[in-house]
Amino acid sequence: MPLLVVGSVALDSVETPVHQRDNVLGGSAVYFSYAASYFAPVRLVGVVGEDWPREHTQLLNQRRIDTSGLQVVPGKKTFRWRGKYLPNMNDRETLEVHLNVFGEFNPVLPEDYRRAQFLFLANGSPRLQLSVLDQTPGARLAVADTMDLWIRNEYDDLMRLFQRIDGLVLNDAEAKLLTGDENLVRAGHKICKMGPRFVVIKKGEHGAMFFSELETYVLPAYPTEDVFDPTGAGDTFAGGMMGYLAEQNNFDPVTLKKAMGYGVVTASYTVEDFSLDRLKKIDRNDLDLRMSKYQQMLNF
Amino acid sequence: MPLLVVGSVALDSVETPVHQRDNVLGGSAVYFSYAASYFAPVRLVGVVGEDWPREHTQLLNQRRIDTSGLQVVPGKKTFRWRGKYLPNMNDRETLEVHLNVFGEFNPVLPEDYRRAQFLFLANGSPRLQLSVLDQTPGARLAVADTMDLWIRNEYDDLMRLFQRIDGLVLNDAEAKLLTGDENLVRAGHKICKMGPRFVVIKKGEHGAMFFSELETYVLPAYPTEDVFDPTGAGDTFAGGMMGYLAEQNNFDPVTLKKAMGYGVVTASYTVEDFSLDRLKKIDRNDLDLRMSKYQQMLNF
Repeated sequence: MPLLVVGSVALDSVETPVHQRDNVLGGSAVYFSYAASYFAPVRLVGVVGEDWPREHTQLLNQRRIDTSGLQVVPGKKTFRWRGKYLPNMNDRETLEVHLNVFGEFNPVLPEDYRRAQFLFLANGSPRLQLSVLDQTPGARLAVADTMDLWIRNEYDDLMRLFQRIDGLVLNDAEAKLLTGDENLVRAGHKICKMGPRFVVIKKGEHGAMFFSELETYVLPAYPTEDVFDPTGAGDTFAGGMMGYLAEQNNFDPVTLKKAMGYGVVTASYTVEDFSLDRLKKIDRNDLDLRMSKYQQMLNF
Repeated sequence: MPLLVVGSVALDSVETPVHQRDNVLGGSAVYFSYAASYFAPVRLVGVVGEDWPREHTQLLNQRRIDTSGLQVVPGKKTFRWRGKYLPNMNDRETLEVHLNVFGEFNPVLPEDYRRAQFLFLANGSPRLQLSVLDQTPGARLAVADTMDLWIRNEYDDLMRLFQRIDGLVLNDAEAKLLTGDENLVRAGHKICKMGPRFVVIKKGEHGAMFFSELETYVLPAYPTEDVFDPTGAGDTFAGGMMGYLAEQNNFDPVTLKKAMGYGVVTASYTVEDFSLDRLKKIDRNDLDLRMSKYQQMLNF
């Protein structure tokens, strides 16, 4: 089952305590697509400027990622982000954000994209996310990400979005901000009451939590020594999760938990190098092998 | 198989954002003993002053905790600790520490205690811990806890201790301090190289990690909304873990992982009320039920 994703496409500059990389391929929809493509065909909707290197598009096309929804705006610049990781490699500071073309992004989906059944609304304003929902009336599973900016500045639109999505993915700091609750278990259940049928709280190096009316669980991150660059880990988590659901064409509780596991495992590769560099070197078999180690780790 | 524990016995005063309790029963050896007693008979070695309320000893004796090694020093005061939890209920500040009798504690073990096969060296100076090891030559499994104070001030004794113990339990901040490494997976393996055959890093609300030459794994905390007071969670984790090992009279890798699980589950009860108040209300059956839920949560 193909999977539709709408979100940011970016050129990132990343500083870690040890390394630095400038203008590497990034953006929520890019990380998501690449991760999901191990499991299912992906249709990517996003926008870039004329500074966008063509080889990035080629790289995506080499996987099962359809980029016909990637709009190129002449005379404008691609979204750029610059960030710096603290020594713990879990917390980061944003040093610069230039929204550029992404600031005015108002996607009009190609006709065949509008029949999407599996939909992920990656980073973007709730208004943009609502507009995509309007264009995909047949979506059976619509999951959105959100972030502090929208919680702070577009709260009302976000609440409207919550009434219309099946699942929400956000990180621990955002869940605390959204609910005013420092206990993530309570926060997760409070967000469920705001609308989404299920909520996933990403905890970075500490894994991810799942909440629905009937279920509460937490899965740890896959332990790795080689944390080079955590950028994109959350988006590849979501990509692995949604990709597996689309592949299975199913999102019952049992499949959702296994999808969370694949999300954790996919993200564990992302952090092992900059940008998509580590993911480029692995195939589905590597993911399955690490998934099996992960399941074994949690079995006693 | 009985289990010997040597460590602090204290009167704690605890402030959380919502509640406060003064002079409640606490101390590493108390929390450890109470947790371990669900699984195996415990022999507690510690010291208190003449201000020690007798009912605390009675409470311990009501479980299978032998307190004949609990020394009462006339004319002196019991170890007191006062701490305050930050709103996240995971980080805390120590407001006051009065070592009192614990500062000069030099335990001489009763004769029958010296044949202990399962030994836990709870919070105490490495010199004290080494002296206990000298008195228990038949210990088949000796596990120690340590803390920032000893890492900073008694590093050489700590390294001598590491040569003689089988396992070490410490928290994430202490593991980072000890190794100078912010990555807990690397930190865990570095500590293994300092001597202990296995290392457990406690991560509070994020669970615990296990390291040995051949194994690396992480188990999440049991998710709970009801975090009243995290004091003693780490010690009850260790108590649940060591208690299960003593009960099984075994510490092979499979048993160790299940013991970690029981540690997590026991600690999840501790945080649900002040002092031992929540643990007092449960029995082994409650622990087994939650353990089974926990195993199910991690199975997919």
